[in-house]
Amino acid sequence: MDKVTKINTPKGFRVAGVHCGLKADQEKDLALIVSDTPCQVVGAFTTNKVKAAPVLYDQAILNSGKSVRAIVANAGNANACTGDQGLVHTKETARQTASIFGGQADDVLVLSTGVIGVQLPIEKIISGIGAAGNLLIPDGWEDVAQAIMTTDTKPKIHSIRSAEGYTITGIAKGSGMIAPNMATMLAVIATDVILSPEMKERVTQIWEQSFNRIVIDGDMSTNDTVLLIANGAAGIMPTETFEKDLLRVCSTLAKAVVQDGEGATKLVKVIIRGAAKQADAKKIAGAIATSSLCKTAFYGADPNWGRFICAAGYAGVDLEVDKMILWIRNKNEKIKLFENAQSANYDEAAAISLMNENEWTIELDLCTGSENYWLWTCDLSHEYITINGHYRT
Amino acid sequence: MDKVTKINTPKGFRVAGVHCGLKADQEKDLALIVSDTPCQVVGAFTTNKVKAAPVLYDQAILNSGKSVRAIVANAGNANACTGDQGLVHTKETARQTASIFGGQADDVLVLSTGVIGVQLPIEKIISGIGAAGNLLIPDGWEDVAQAIMTTDTKPKIHSIRSAEGYTITGIAKGSGMIAPNMATMLAVIATDVILSPEMKERVTQIWEQSFNRIVIDGDMSTNDTVLLIANGAAGIMPTETFEKDLLRVCSTLAKAVVQDGEGATKLVKVIIRGAAKQADAKKIAGAIATSSLCKTAFYGADPNWGRFICAAGYAGVDLEVDKMILWIRNKNEKIKLFENAQSANYDEAAAISLMNENEWTIELDLCTGSENYWLWTCDLSHEYITINGHYRT
Repeated sequence: MDKVTKINTPKGFRVAGVHCGLKADQEKDLALIVSDTPCQVVGAFTTNKVKAAPVLYDQAILNSGKSVRAIVANAGNANACTGDQGLVHTKETARQTASIFGGQADDVLVLSTGVIGVQLPIEKIISGIGAAGNLLIPDGWEDVAQAIMTTDTKPKIHSIRSAEGYTITGIAKGSGMIAPNMATMLAVIATDVILSPEMKERVTQIWEQSFNRIVIDGDMSTNDTVLLIANGAAGIMPTETFEKDLLRVCSTLAKAVVQDGEGATKLVKVIIRGAAKQADAKKIAGAIATSSLCKTAFYGADPNWGRFICAAGYAGVDLEVDKMILWIRNKNEKIKLFENAQSANYDEAAAISLMNENEWTIELDLCTGSENYWLWTCDLSHEYITINGHYRT
Repeated sequence: MDKVTKINTPKGFRVAGVHCGLKADQEKDLALIVSDTPCQVVGAFTTNKVKAAPVLYDQAILNSGKSVRAIVANAGNANACTGDQGLVHTKETARQTASIFGGQADDVLVLSTGVIGVQLPIEKIISGIGAAGNLLIPDGWEDVAQAIMTTDTKPKIHSIRSAEGYTITGIAKGSGMIAPNMATMLAVIATDVILSPEMKERVTQIWEQSFNRIVIDGDMSTNDTVLLIANGAAGIMPTETFEKDLLRVCSTLAKAVVQDGEGATKLVKVIIRGAAKQADAKKIAGAIATSSLCKTAFYGADPNWGRFICAAGYAGVDLEVDKMILWIRNKNEKIKLFENAQSANYDEAAAISLMNENEWTIELDLCTGSENYWLWTCDLSHEYITINGHYRT
């Protein structure tokens, strides 16, 4: 994500990102994605019981099974905890967007992200939709990625054009309130394949392997939404290659969200192996990935492995501590830190050096079965506190 | 706890705290509590599956139902994740302590706190026990409280002498890895009452109302232990007054642990009312009390109530968002922040001012029943990161 990758343009989409006044300093804060033709859509949403107005609105449209033509997204205001007025604002946002292509409100999905509990300044949104509608172009995806950022330090965008001729282009934003289990952020993946019913089902499984595997602070947002829209403009039915490409786009975006987590300086993959049940491995991965003590140890590059074992211990899973083996590793080396219920004889300087890298892995083998689970997480830094201590000011 | 309170001395106990070499700068790191006569004992321990050697050792003694004569505690090394050698060290620590009064190893309970995964330097411990044995005095409780400190910035000690003539003296240490549910720290409460079987059962209920109601970072330690020892030397059977006094001592210590949590600048009480089930109220209180986003908002005195509502939303409890009412309050005022699924019209400056106080309360009424639960938590500050980023260096 640090390298500038070529952004490919899926056929039949026109997009734009503009400043409408929700963010300061003329930063883009409103985006439109409009398809020339109706799109099949797959969506996944926060499981938080407190759902933002656009989440409730989008879920109703997806439940109806109808196709959509457009997505409108704003950053800077989550339109969450805004009561009935929030829903009125969401519908008005959709209606204004639909007027661009002569459609109805339920042809449009709405995404919002930002501060919770403040009514959407609807006049700004309306004028922003008008401005964006006049700027729609096929290759404006980077503007879209920028317009959905909140505390993200860089836009997240990735795209693949296949040899067969289809294109998948995805954008995402983080960067706090990211927990596993339909945890995210906002993400939109646009493609020009013809989505078959079978492939629609596969999409959620691909998200389970990407967007559902990331942790920043363990808080689950009111607005988390992932959407895939497919307009069929390339005239191609998806193949196995498409699945792999879609996973690659989603994984790249998910990883970029963690790498750019609030205050994050390191990406840590937590792999739990050898569990009796995958649910056990998942609980332990989650405990380590969200523990403030583990995450500050990542930050300080402190091989204080006792904290990782301790977090495993309170994950609510039966453990045989004597059997557990813990390593940290990167692409080149693997350092065993814990075995036989005690410290392994490891080189402390080497462990510190490895943990000082930007990207490394914790691997814990429970040695009680054959089930595995993994998560991506980041460290917990001073900067996280600075960002979140005064988010609204 | 900021005021110096008179430390009363329970009859028939002699105590000492010394430096044996686990901490730097000649700070006290080993404590002895010895009773002239056998003590009844009540204990509660971490539910972490990874238990430190002294926890396993103490649990075996308590399960046997026998009385004890002494407690030996060290700070600076948790003797956790230390394999078979760790248990050998614990037994040797107990045996050396018992030799002071001509007893057996199982007359002694052992407490350890500090870094995980490092073998106990047993020679230092043995020489410390010898030194402390020569210094035992009835009124050395402040030395004991100091000797069990790790990242605590002040010792935690509270005692009550009743009109009837019994005394309760308690000490505790925090200050990270504190989560509710037999979450703590180490704490010892010594009293000279004659503990009845009925009162023994009441003790754990009193702990449920005090030591089990505190959150610092949500991590549950491998070493958490609370012990009450009663030697009967005052010749008094406990009354209802004793229960109240014991709760007062335990609550004072528990609250002091949160106030002195790693990096903590504020004590926040989280009260959930009007739940259908107490378990629901408990889940929501726990979600708010451990959320990094809520805790950074406490730190920044930011009335970003959306984060509190959001945390309630992902607690895994069915909610009727329309009915929920959220306040912050102190002793003098109560500010309603959220009602009817949206922001209440509140005075932002007044809310900030209240949240800038050292101690205040979040109150959330779910309005779906009559069950309640509360927790004490603290904020998450830059200092927490500093302390835990490089704990071992």
